[in-house]
Amino acid sequence: MLAVGIVGATGYAGAELVRILAGHPQVDLRILTSRQYAGQAFSDIYPAFQGLTELVCQPYDSQRISAETDLVFTALPHQIPMSIVPGLLANGLRVIDLSADYRFENAADYEAHYEPHQNPELLTKAVYGLSEVYRDSIKSAQLIGNPGCYPTSVLLPLVPLLKAGLIDGRLLIADAKSGVSGAGRTPSLVTHFCEVHESFKAYKVADHRHNPEMDAILSKAADRPLHISFVPHLVPMSRGMLTTIYTQPQPSVTAAQIDECLQAYFDPCPFVRLLGWDRFPSTRAVRGTNYCDIGYRLDPRGKHLILIAAIDNLVKGAAGQAVQNMNLMMGWDESMGLDAPPFPL
Amino acid sequence: MLAVGIVGATGYAGAELVRILAGHPQVDLRILTSRQYAGQAFSDIYPAFQGLTELVCQPYDSQRISAETDLVFTALPHQIPMSIVPGLLANGLRVIDLSADYRFENAADYEAHYEPHQNPELLTKAVYGLSEVYRDSIKSAQLIGNPGCYPTSVLLPLVPLLKAGLIDGRLLIADAKSGVSGAGRTPSLVTHFCEVHESFKAYKVADHRHNPEMDAILSKAADRPLHISFVPHLVPMSRGMLTTIYTQPQPSVTAAQIDECLQAYFDPCPFVRLLGWDRFPSTRAVRGTNYCDIGYRLDPRGKHLILIAAIDNLVKGAAGQAVQNMNLMMGWDESMGLDAPPFPL
Amino acid sequence: MLAVGIVGATGYAGAELVRILAGHPQVDLRILTSRQYAGQAFSDIYPAFQGLTELVCQPYDSQRISAETDLVFTALPHQIPMSIVPGLLANGLRVIDLSADYRFENAADYEAHYEPHQNPELLTKAVYGLSEVYRDSIKSAQLIGNPGCYPTSVLLPLVPLLKAGLIDGRLLIADAKSGVSGAGRTPSLVTHFCEVHESFKAYKVADHRHNPEMDAILSKAADRPLHISFVPHLVPMSRGMLTTIYTQPQPSVTAAQIDECLQAYFDPCPFVRLLGWDRFPSTRAVRGTNYCDIGYRLDPRGKHLILIAAIDNLVKGAAGQAVQNMNLMMGWDESMGLDAPPFPL
Amino acid sequence: MLAVGIVGATGYAGAELVRILAGHPQVDLRILTSRQYAGQAFSDIYPAFQGLTELVCQPYDSQRISAETDLVFTALPHQIPMSIVPGLLANGLRVIDLSADYRFENAADYEAHYEPHQNPELLTKAVYGLSEVYRDSIKSAQLIGNPGCYPTSVLLPLVPLLKAGLIDGRLLIADAKSGVSGAGRTPSLVTHFCEVHESFKAYKVADHRHNPEMDAILSKAADRPLHISFVPHLVPMSRGMLTTIYTQPQPSVTAAQIDECLQAYFDPCPFVRLLGWDRFPSTRAVRGTNYCDIGYRLDPRGKHLILIAAIDNLVKGAAGQAVQNMNLMMGWDESMGLDAPPFPL
Repeated sequence: MLAVGIVGATGYAGAELVRILAGHPQVDLRILTSRQYAGQAFSDIYPAFQGLTELVCQPYDSQRISAETDLVFTALPHQIPMSIVPGLLANGLRVIDLSADYRFENAADYEAHYEPHQNPELLTKAVYGLSEVYRDSIKSAQLIGNPGCYPTSVLLPLVPLLKAGLIDGRLLIADAKSGVSGAGRTPSLVTHFCEVHESFKAYKVADHRHNPEMDAILSKAADRPLHISFVPHLVPMSRGMLTTIYTQPQPSVTAAQIDECLQAYFDPCPFVRLLGWDRFPSTRAVRGTNYCDIGYRLDPRGKHLILIAAIDNLVKGAAGQAVQNMNLMMGWDESMGLDAPPFPL
Repeated sequence: MLAVGIVGATGYAGAELVRILAGHPQVDLRILTSRQYAGQAFSDIYPAFQGLTELVCQPYDSQRISAETDLVFTALPHQIPMSIVPGLLANGLRVIDLSADYRFENAADYEAHYEPHQNPELLTKAVYGLSEVYRDSIKSAQLIGNPGCYPTSVLLPLVPLLKAGLIDGRLLIADAKSGVSGAGRTPSLVTHFCEVHESFKAYKVADHRHNPEMDAILSKAADRPLHISFVPHLVPMSRGMLTTIYTQPQPSVTAAQIDECLQAYFDPCPFVRLLGWDRFPSTRAVRGTNYCDIGYRLDPRGKHLILIAAIDNLVKGAAGQAVQNMNLMMGWDESMGLDAPPFPL
Repeated sequence: MLAVGIVGATGYAGAELVRILAGHPQVDLRILTSRQYAGQAFSDIYPAFQGLTELVCQPYDSQRISAETDLVFTALPHQIPMSIVPGLLANGLRVIDLSADYRFENAADYEAHYEPHQNPELLTKAVYGLSEVYRDSIKSAQLIGNPGCYPTSVLLPLVPLLKAGLIDGRLLIADAKSGVSGAGRTPSLVTHFCEVHESFKAYKVADHRHNPEMDAILSKAADRPLHISFVPHLVPMSRGMLTTIYTQPQPSVTAAQIDECLQAYFDPCPFVRLLGWDRFPSTRAVRGTNYCDIGYRLDPRGKHLILIAAIDNLVKGAAGQAVQNMNLMMGWDESMGLDAPPFPL
Repeated sequence: MLAVGIVGATGYAGAELVRILAGHPQVDLRILTSRQYAGQAFSDIYPAFQGLTELVCQPYDSQRISAETDLVFTALPHQIPMSIVPGLLANGLRVIDLSADYRFENAADYEAHYEPHQNPELLTKAVYGLSEVYRDSIKSAQLIGNPGCYPTSVLLPLVPLLKAGLIDGRLLIADAKSGVSGAGRTPSLVTHFCEVHESFKAYKVADHRHNPEMDAILSKAADRPLHISFVPHLVPMSRGMLTTIYTQPQPSVTAAQIDECLQAYFDPCPFVRLLGWDRFPSTRAVRGTNYCDIGYRLDPRGKHLILIAAIDNLVKGAAGQAVQNMNLMMGWDESMGLDAPPFPL
């Protein structure tokens, strides 16, 4: 059994890690930390867990977590992880960080959109945890920068097509829609029930911090600098993310080539379900699961390839992919502990 | 492995059975039937199950289901089960019926609120599947009449107190609130999104078919005829049921006695979580689980004992309790296959 | 035209006052105050009003508001109004306060559940603004304590029956359900979308501050001390309140007497719609309106009279009733400015 | 007073017409027809209107409606209007049809996506009722083909820019999101609460019947054949539509030119609110109103102009625009009867 800790266990991503790891056959969940709720039982914060876990939230204690665990998930606002991760790594722990702090290869990109980085030397050591794309590097990594939810939904359909040179990188548009849990558990007007319910809006239009994260990985896949126009929207629901992508096949590329490319790429991937041409995903069908469902269509008048990807933003977009990465790092079956039945209703 | 069939697998209770049984370690799910979707893959109806089950919906075939399975769940509108259950029993199968057809001990009660009964002789043979109350009879039953969702939420808190003579049966009021999935999957104005969303209403006020079902079991517990005033309401959410019960302790009964009675009664029950005095449940905390959470309070001005019970109407109120009953019938651990993590968000 | 100010215009009740008064033919809305948003255009806070009002939120200034307006609505958290209302009254303004500060006749009742009162002498001067019940006193009042939303829904059906001696005051139970806007606009976990959506729960069970407000008016109607057991619940919707009341007719009282009593009482009341026996309201049908819809039923087994009342908690439960009271105070038609079409969807 | 009839008054668009026309100062609403509810009071179908209208739904009777009214709104499924509109016109009535039957200039376009047309000769006589674009023709029209909701949200931002030659018609993408009421009141799985709630999906991807309607008007504006790639999505809310449009400015076009073009075009339009650069609309802010709010942004890396438009699909997307067109036809103020306060919560 692997001794595991979660730093920041009471936010939504942290709690989702608890939910998933509670059923993981190889994990012994030892430590949950929370600044806000230190000293309180986790099941007092999330009463769903009454009788299911006795764990009490602790203040963060680097010594203790290093002594008692082998692998730590950090589910914290960006900028906090970079102050604690180096210590954990130095003590020999593996770390999967769910913030943006270790997602970029070079510090300048991070600093342009976030804050000055305190340990830029770790950025080359960290592996970007998009499991299906960087599986091999993840296996031998000590530190994972777990992808953002939006990038996960944008990158999975596009990376294989860019790598294969099948689409024209000059037209890349991602129109994304996310449930409210993506905004976290801290109360604000943005997440106030009455401000969200029966409403729909765009926000941070072509101005979201996940955009450079996408651009970096897309550029790497195409081996030239690319930019995707990215517009996120807020959906009046708690969970789920659906992204509609507009691009253009390269001139002589056929539909069959696109299909074959995606099928070949995702054939060994248990969590990508290709729906094929003209069948489309819904967030309902991936609710509570680690799946990314992808469907696609050529606009019948021929100009655009439309790809639609759906994930559960808290699972494949956060905690689930983090556990998938842990499985890869430990050499376990990639889907261990991630096979809870879906929750379609 | 027990070979199991679900008759009526594409309604919400049926699909919830699929969801639960897919993860049950002792069950081999062999047959799903559906009149409406015969010939279609279950995962076409519920795309969440793509890649998870290959089962194709079949038309109902008594011979085939008898040949291939040992236990059948019937998740059908009332009146249909009574036309097929006798045949299944005659073929030696165990049957757990989720309709009202086998919930009443005498035919007159059933016929007063439903239809003429075609096999009233089975009513005395059938056991009412309120697992915590009739556990012993369930263990040896061949036919279970699985309780309605409303009765489950009303009876669990009241039966122990009535049996112990701690409350006055003359004041029994249950004000219940249910999510929309209780109305089933067949489209109607009642379940139309725009008619439900941002609205709240009562329906079948003191006139619901589940009322006589409650009255029968309450009377049995108290050993005298009782009636509970029952008012159901529709909540704009998909899942969940919360029932607020108003009653009166017998004159000299103390709070401690009430607490002790409930604690003693539910001590061996893995799926009842007593929250105790002045702590109250929410449907969120039982979402996706087989739990019934119960909290209570004496109105400080002393007149009323208020008991609040929350369940997931599709789990403890339907499919989960049915699986719990199967476990009891088979002599397995009562909670086998019912330990999927909760789904609080 | 009456010059009107709203103190606390950016909370939900305040904004609803703006919405209603914007269309009131006799009102000139002059001043909106807001601590939090002083200096910002109201239409920046509520973009729905872009192009519809030029008003800019001001800090509260007693002198200015007294100089420029004749009547003021105070829509503030309790305890704040009592520090400003005496000054406004002294300057000759009429005041309609939407907080609890002027709802109680004697200070002890208020102080038992809220805070020490700074101007208890005003309590006897203030009139409780339940328009249908205290219409005559309201007409000549200078200060109105506008009722809480819960008390409005509880008192309207019960007061006439208690006054007429038709029901037994010993059994009074109100099971109330409210939309989230009742909790106000200040962000908190209670109003966080993900904590509310797809969930239902009770709160402050038999322990809500509105309970003594109800008890006081019920006791006054019955002319003897009464207590109602009151349990509020939170519904995952923004607007609307539905209250289910359980009581008992006096022994020889007939259904016809109950009906006649309610019909006679509410005959002159434009905002109470009696649905009669066995027809029940929904919050949808009163959405956006000042109506209180009331339906009722005798439990067929005879013990309980069940009355169900629905209001829009922000209209009849707050801003609408406040405007209705203003109309009465000014000698205008009671429904002036309150006739916007309903908003059923 | 203009005598008005609504044919198909109990669908959502029809009921919204009732809601708006009930407050229109120049309209006398005389006749409501409904096949399904003939003989029933409108307020039985929509209890919100109890006490507000005495109108009883009638079966459709061409003679009677021609005798008693001067102008008729037909709010029916396509194909039905074309069987009754010629008769109404022949009797001298004005007709505003909310279906697709009179939206196309030539029958072939209609027939390619709908059905054979029974009176193609009327298509050249009918005026497309996009009020802001075809105001002058609408004023003198006898028959209006009222636009679909999706086309309204797509065309308003694009038509001025295409007419002015400021954008490149080769890149036109509209990613649209609609509330459920757009699917109508007839129950189906698509509108079942439990199938919609907490889910988000695309549908009819680049395959929606509103696409050719958009293409026709866009092509007319640009004076050359254009095609927009259009993907509609279903949002778990009742009302509201938001469309995100991606296009490309012509090479040397400046941001100032785009702004000036839109401002000049919409200056005389009371129902278009331009939010300007980098401010974006929400459906909440137009809820219950006839407004179309439009905001825009150049992707900072320069490639795309992103325009976002929000409307209430039942108002500006259906009934409200129909009333606006009636006002234009009658020579009244364009916004008469359309000034009910917004309903932001």
